[in-house]
Amino acid sequence: MINEQPRQPVTVLGLGLMGTALADAFRRAGHPTTVWTRSDRPGPDGTTRAATAAEAVAASPLVVACVLDYRAVEEVLAGGLTGKAVVNLTTGTPEQARAMAPQVVDRGAEYLDGGIMANPAAIGSPSASILYSGSADAFQANERTLAALGASKYLGADPGSAALHDAALLGIMYSAVAGFLQAVALVGREEVSAVEFTPLAQEMLAATASFLPSMAAQVDSGEFTSSEARLDMQLSAVEHLVHAGRVRGVDTTILEHVKSLMAGAIAAGHAASDFGAVIDLLRKPRPLAGG
Amino acid sequence: MINEQPRQPVTVLGLGLMGTALADAFRRAGHPTTVWTRSDRPGPDGTTRAATAAEAVAASPLVVACVLDYRAVEEVLAGGLTGKAVVNLTTGTPEQARAMAPQVVDRGAEYLDGGIMANPAAIGSPSASILYSGSADAFQANERTLAALGASKYLGADPGSAALHDAALLGIMYSAVAGFLQAVALVGREEVSAVEFTPLAQEMLAATASFLPSMAAQVDSGEFTSSEARLDMQLSAVEHLVHAGRVRGVDTTILEHVKSLMAGAIAAGHAASDFGAVIDLLRKPRPLAGG
Ligand SMILES: NC(=O)c1ccc[n+]([C@@H]2O[C@H](COP(=O)([O-])OP(=O)(O)OC[C@H]3O[C@@H](n4cnc5c(N)ncnc54)[C@H](OP(=O)(O)O)[C@@H]3O)[C@@H](O)[C@H]2O)c1
Ligand SMILES: NC(=O)c1ccc[n+]([C@@H]2O[C@H](COP(=O)([O-])OP(=O)(O)OC[C@H]3O[C@@H](n4cnc5c(N)ncnc54)[C@H](OP(=O)(O)O)[C@@H]3O)[C@@H](O)[C@H]2O)c1
Repeated sequence: MINEQPRQPVTVLGLGLMGTALADAFRRAGHPTTVWTRSDRPGPDGTTRAATAAEAVAASPLVVACVLDYRAVEEVLAGGLTGKAVVNLTTGTPEQARAMAPQVVDRGAEYLDGGIMANPAAIGSPSASILYSGSADAFQANERTLAALGASKYLGADPGSAALHDAALLGIMYSAVAGFLQAVALVGREEVSAVEFTPLAQEMLAATASFLPSMAAQVDSGEFTSSEARLDMQLSAVEHLVHAGRVRGVDTTILEHVKSLMAGAIAAGHAASDFGAVIDLLRKPRPLAGG
Repeated sequence: MINEQPRQPVTVLGLGLMGTALADAFRRAGHPTTVWTRSDRPGPDGTTRAATAAEAVAASPLVVACVLDYRAVEEVLAGGLTGKAVVNLTTGTPEQARAMAPQVVDRGAEYLDGGIMANPAAIGSPSASILYSGSADAFQANERTLAALGASKYLGADPGSAALHDAALLGIMYSAVAGFLQAVALVGREEVSAVEFTPLAQEMLAATASFLPSMAAQVDSGEFTSSEARLDMQLSAVEHLVHAGRVRGVDTTILEHVKSLMAGAIAAGHAASDFGAVIDLLRKPRPLAGG
């Protein structure tokens, strides 16, 4: 198109698997893309490699950092930041995000924290969902540019909110994936291949997703009376799962934990409740007084 | 329809939440349905309650048992079984299914074991997936009748196969659901409601399901080299999840287990591998020699 606007320049700090995918997605969307990483590995074709982190930062008004952890972010965020928007897509805790925001703001920049809910291969497609929180101005000013990475979701001004949601969602992913591998190990003992088993596992995750809304409503209301599956019946079922794993030499740590949560909820009077009643056992006293 | 064939009579043993749903689905599909349960609770409207378990069994060529466990199945499967098809939809271990099959066959009946991958509310709809294994003849002869319950999947002649898959799939469900509640507890510490959080959780389960095929292919091939997410990076991320949970007083048992699996795989040389490399740590020596 003849009248196309020149695209905003972007800098990407970190060229690991994810940083490389981010830089490549900006480049494909037409943004002049400057990159830098600690090691001497090359950036994707069509990007410009800066000689130092400070030069990379100086090259663009929008600076995206995606490195191993927040300590590494502090290393790569070099030089002057005045007037810039810093978008930190590195995984960390809400506490780390909330500590970094004022540091960046003190250096004259706006701070957006983010959590990438996708793998590098999905970056640049609408299936890559990316959570943001922090400066609303920075989000609005850069929304169109960030859309090159995937589907953005802005969660509000608290810079820790994206990391909080990221931690919660990754926790679900790791629980589900560990459950999948434990299932694969189990059926593998009887010569069922992982690939063969996978469509049933996908169906089960879809079925699980479909009953989360009713479980969530129970958690929010604190009312768990079951019309579908009593917890005492479910405990009996989980005992069978544990047994099936144990006799086959398959790790049952997660299932034994689930079993003990169920037994605890039943002991607290929830024999006829739905599974959601175990929520009380997942909430413990906070380690820091008043925290 | 004038020429409609009379439907096959069916007996359902067990009138818990699931047995009641099964009996009602057969009745709705037009099958004369006889029911019995240990207690005096009534069967669904339109079904016939037998006075004893033996009378209930005698009433139909197809006898479906759905009670708490296999011990209860032995209690309810009373009287003569000659010439019948016994379909046991009670949850148990593959060992229990394999032990029950010859007992039923010795009493002159054919045995089908099954696992219901649905809740009672879904029974009678195509979204209720039910796994069967055992007598192929019994499955074929009763396939049309069993279709009244949901979508049938026949897994072969081994009577333990349905229970094996059931155990594996329920293990995934409980892992994912425990992960969901742990996530809900986490975001709940910062005033995010479970209902509000649920759409993101559903999206995450869908994303997780989408990468299971490639993980499964890695498990089957034993080749885990990552082009997406190195295990050492993922360990760093999971450490943040554990930290975010701990400072909020949220149970992190599953995540700590995941963390220790990752650390174990990294120690075994898998720092640059995908998560699937933890599979080796889920497979332990079997407790019974030669088992
Ligand atoms: N990969 C995924 O699927 C995925 C998904 C969602 C979120 N994320 C997040 O994205 C971030 C990056 O992940 P990745 O997959 O790209 O990891 P990676 O492939 O392991 O790359 C790590 C990056 O961090 C840099 N780094 C490490 N320690 C450093 C230090 N002390 N100082 C400066 N730079 C340092 C590395 O620099 P060198 O160039 O020197 O190696 C490299 O650029 C992580 O926070 C991760 O949780 C990744
Ligand atoms: N509910 C679900 O969402 C679901 C999903 C998939 C699979 N299942 C499986 O379906 C089966 C039944 O579940 P449910 O939800 O119906 O459980 P439930 O509501 O707790 O009912 C249990 C049934 O078992 C009977 N029973 C218990 N102990 C007995 C004994 N010693 N002798 C004879 N009968 C006995 C009960 O008889 P009474 O009439 O005397 O109480 C009742 O009919 C279980 O194996 C479960 O794992 C359930």
